[in-house]
Amino acid sequence: MTDPAPVSVDALLARVTGIFEGCGVRPDAAASVARVIVAGERDACKSHGIYRIEGCLKVLAAGKVNGQAVPRLHDEGRAVVEVDAVGGFSNPAFDAALDLLDARARDTGLAALVIRDCLHFSALWHDVEALAGRGLAGLSMCPSYSFVAPAGGTTPLLGTNPFAFGWPRSSGDPYVFDFATSVAARGEIELHRRAGTPIPEGWAMDADGNPTTDPEAALAGAMLTFGGHKGSALSTMIELLSGAMLGEFMSREALDFMGRTDLLPRHGALVLAFDPTVFAARSGRDPLAEGEKLLDAIAEQGARLPSQRRFRARAAALSDGILLSAAELAQLDRFETEGLSAVAG
Amino acid sequence: MTDPAPVSVDALLARVTGIFEGCGVRPDAAASVARVIVAGERDACKSHGIYRIEGCLKVLAAGKVNGQAVPRLHDEGRAVVEVDAVGGFSNPAFDAALDLLDARARDTGLAALVIRDCLHFSALWHDVEALAGRGLAGLSMCPSYSFVAPAGGTTPLLGTNPFAFGWPRSSGDPYVFDFATSVAARGEIELHRRAGTPIPEGWAMDADGNPTTDPEAALAGAMLTFGGHKGSALSTMIELLSGAMLGEFMSREALDFMGRTDLLPRHGALVLAFDPTVFAARSGRDPLAEGEKLLDAIAEQGARLPSQRRFRARAAALSDGILLSAAELAQLDRFETEGLSAVAG
Repeated sequence: MTDPAPVSVDALLARVTGIFEGCGVRPDAAASVARVIVAGERDACKSHGIYRIEGCLKVLAAGKVNGQAVPRLHDEGRAVVEVDAVGGFSNPAFDAALDLLDARARDTGLAALVIRDCLHFSALWHDVEALAGRGLAGLSMCPSYSFVAPAGGTTPLLGTNPFAFGWPRSSGDPYVFDFATSVAARGEIELHRRAGTPIPEGWAMDADGNPTTDPEAALAGAMLTFGGHKGSALSTMIELLSGAMLGEFMSREALDFMGRTDLLPRHGALVLAFDPTVFAARSGRDPLAEGEKLLDAIAEQGARLPSQRRFRARAAALSDGILLSAAELAQLDRFETEGLSAVAG
Repeated sequence: MTDPAPVSVDALLARVTGIFEGCGVRPDAAASVARVIVAGERDACKSHGIYRIEGCLKVLAAGKVNGQAVPRLHDEGRAVVEVDAVGGFSNPAFDAALDLLDARARDTGLAALVIRDCLHFSALWHDVEALAGRGLAGLSMCPSYSFVAPAGGTTPLLGTNPFAFGWPRSSGDPYVFDFATSVAARGEIELHRRAGTPIPEGWAMDADGNPTTDPEAALAGAMLTFGGHKGSALSTMIELLSGAMLGEFMSREALDFMGRTDLLPRHGALVLAFDPTVFAARSGRDPLAEGEKLLDAIAEQGARLPSQRRFRARAAALSDGILLSAAELAQLDRFETEGLSAVAG
């Protein structure tokens, strides 16, 4: 058997869209979900790439996400606009609301998008990059499942609660970060469990609240927030702003609702969009040119600008295509031919 | 000499207001500045209490803050409202804009306050507590002086950039946090220098970029962000949103403008106000009741809710008064009798 040839980004997008359509997802929604999955693969974020297809199909097979849901926009002319995913995937809902969020932010300087009742599986950088591509700064956050103990506690309550920020740059890729407020992702602990290797100190505690490096004990115990009490505070803020404030699930209720941890979570999300030209107008300064001074100074001292690895992988993938393993290609084949029955049982 | 008697919060407020008036600050502004200083002392935040008076008077004596400045509101009916401190203290500007920010947030769900060209010395919890007291969630952030290296770098560029969040609770004190995005405050390193004790590992690096526990070397080098690259990303976001986006100073320019590190910084600030009743309206849920579920669950497992120490100190101070040392009382006497000449030379 010869080595697989690279697949182009567009060809992979067509395949993944087809898989979701074949599993009963309406075409627009299938395309939205496929775009964010292929973007992950393109950017060498394997944990948010085609690896996610199986997880999405499992939730479809379990009847816990509605592939036919049509997102409903709600706009009362305020700075807060809403899209109800109606139990569908988050990505079609975000895509349906992006033009409205953009227009409102330009009109009034700052706008918020409330996403209701969605199945959420994607990284948040996709949302803030979409805003940055339109010249808007963006913040995005959401709860997840309650796997993380608050600082000073021992019981899982908070989610791994991601927080993403995007800032448009006058040329080239935006400034983007997207991090979990837990020290590590739960999937990383799972990888250690499968490999039989200990996890680093500081990632988790066991069910008795003692520090542990045993991945089994960590999964049965609680994960820790990054940065001690500061990360815990930030994670609590995310529960409040993107859960309680929206009247949507916080991480504990999201887990209670699904009743099992092997299915992706349902909850809401909050996206803020800032128009820098409105904020800066009275200063007479160009906000993006000001931003460049900082970002150039970071890069000049050899410090880390987040997302650079992703952007390099993206450029390579757009130029040379994406190299998938034979096993990955075989899995795509199976999803295409078997549909949801590929994940049954 | 007998031990000093406690002073009531109101009496201290009157004294501190009088000191600022005596140093040429107009009465309204003097009262605003005194309120935030006395609030710090009342809450046993000694680093933001009457200790700050001397620093404020030094900037007045240096002619780098305008005590007579009258804040100017700018409102074009958008979700973004502005107050120009016109080179005065930040607190009178915030106080002048609070009603407008509140009204706009209630009207449109989410509003931002841009504070321009202010002398900033106070903790941010005061702002977000004021919003929480009106039933609004709030975020506040600002740059400071460039003492902190970005993750992976070695040169000071970022400020200690504080980030504060407040959430109203249906009964009692709000949920409030306010933290520096540096591991430690610069003043903590200064205290170690004076005491001749080493600083903990992980706080700072020397001028060559090597980790150091020597406070002198740390002050000549660069401080570190909390939480590694995640804290650094958050600090960068604060520079962009509350510096570049507003067309106001970022931390490096703030330091260049003042030209010395012993005077408090001039820059802008960004405050966001969210009306939870608008965000939650379509859910049919009570957002504050939802928030209580989380906050109660944090407290029930014995985990840390931020600001509790402050709230306990506040209750004690309101009931029993504030106990100042003989030296502190003598300093207040001196500021009252000598005015700005107390800090000259």
